[in-house]
Amino acid sequence: MNELQKEEITKALHDCMEACNYCYDACLEEDDVKMMSACIRLDRECADICGYTEQAIARDSAFVDEFLKVCALICRACEDECRQHDHDHCQHCADMCKRCADICEEFTA
Amino acid sequence: MNELQKEEITKALHDCMEACNYCYDACLEEDDVKMMSACIRLDRECADICGYTEQAIARDSAFVDEFLKVCALICRACEDECRQHDHDHCQHCADMCKRCADICEEFTA
Amino acid sequence: MNELQKEEITKALHDCMEACNYCYDACLEEDDVKMMSACIRLDRECADICGYTEQAIARDSAFVDEFLKVCALICRACEDECRQHDHDHCQHCADMCKRCADICEEFTA
Amino acid sequence: MNELQKEEITKALHDCMEACNYCYDACLEEDDVKMMSACIRLDRECADICGYTEQAIARDSAFVDEFLKVCALICRACEDECRQHDHDHCQHCADMCKRCADICEEFTA
Repeated sequence: MNELQKEEITKALHDCMEACNYCYDACLEEDDVKMMSACIRLDRECADICGYTEQAIARDSAFVDEFLKVCALICRACEDECRQHDHDHCQHCADMCKRCADICEEFTA
Repeated sequence: MNELQKEEITKALHDCMEACNYCYDACLEEDDVKMMSACIRLDRECADICGYTEQAIARDSAFVDEFLKVCALICRACEDECRQHDHDHCQHCADMCKRCADICEEFTA
Repeated sequence: MNELQKEEITKALHDCMEACNYCYDACLEEDDVKMMSACIRLDRECADICGYTEQAIARDSAFVDEFLKVCALICRACEDECRQHDHDHCQHCADMCKRCADICEEFTA
Repeated sequence: MNELQKEEITKALHDCMEACNYCYDACLEEDDVKMMSACIRLDRECADICGYTEQAIARDSAFVDEFLKVCALICRACEDECRQHDHDHCQHCADMCKRCADICEEFTA
């Protein structure tokens, strides 16, 4: 992973972490929270693994590839769930998850 | 902090982390998720800081006291919220949060 | 994963997290820290992923299997490194990493 | 905390997390690792709490102020230690820790 790739992946992970946490918070404020329960769960999962992977890249971990693979999987699951909801925060989160999953997959292909 | 205190605090933190995560999961399965939204939020906050503080104690961090103080505050907030709900998982979580907050406060007094 | 398995895995992860953090701390106190640098790195990696996986199990994450697989890999790497050093903390850490890796592998086989 | 402040603090935390992890990694590669042991420890402490606080801000945690206070304290300790070493990675890390501590203190004053 060169410096440019590091920056690109880190930015995607960071944007995704922020979008997931924002969506998590917003979902808990919705009128119909029950409908958002899978989304809330996945937002937390995705925010946590993205934050974790950012740290791993920053410390030049020997296991970055493994983290990126798990991260891609969780981002994809979060994207799929968020995409089903019309709320702006869900659609934005789905976009950030998609971009992050694409980059993680591309890098570990 | 001697070895016995370390064990006692670590156990309280660990039990609290597990009870909070269990409660978080169970709250998201309740019929009225909306009523549980503050509880869900605090469960995540509390589980995260308890897990964090366990790690800090294990690595003999120089900042254990600071983490314990924040931890006590969050445990107390989570206890207060959980106590208001009749679900078994909330009452159990409130008990574990209370015990953890008591121990953290006692140790940092 | 039934309740008994959950307890067994959680205990192995927790013991491993504690042994790794203890070893990390002790390695940084050794006379020849340079010789321990790979060990220090792996101790942090292993403590972090074990703590992360404990939280995932506690919240009944849908991605526990993926975390256990990565965890097994990192525990094995940490075991291999620690085993090469005669210090008690390294040998104990290697034992805890081995047990944790065995259980993670067994469960995800 | 308004959106602009959120961005400013998040950027400072993120830059600090990256500088600390980079410094941690580089310290472990130095010839005299023993001399860097306090730095390695503080780099990990500081990277972890900065990453934690970023997540807390992103999910609009009710405890952001408490995290920022602890974060400022740890950043200041890491700055003081790094400043004593001539390595570029230590001096850069000290700068990022200083900026982050300043912003955290300013915001929680």
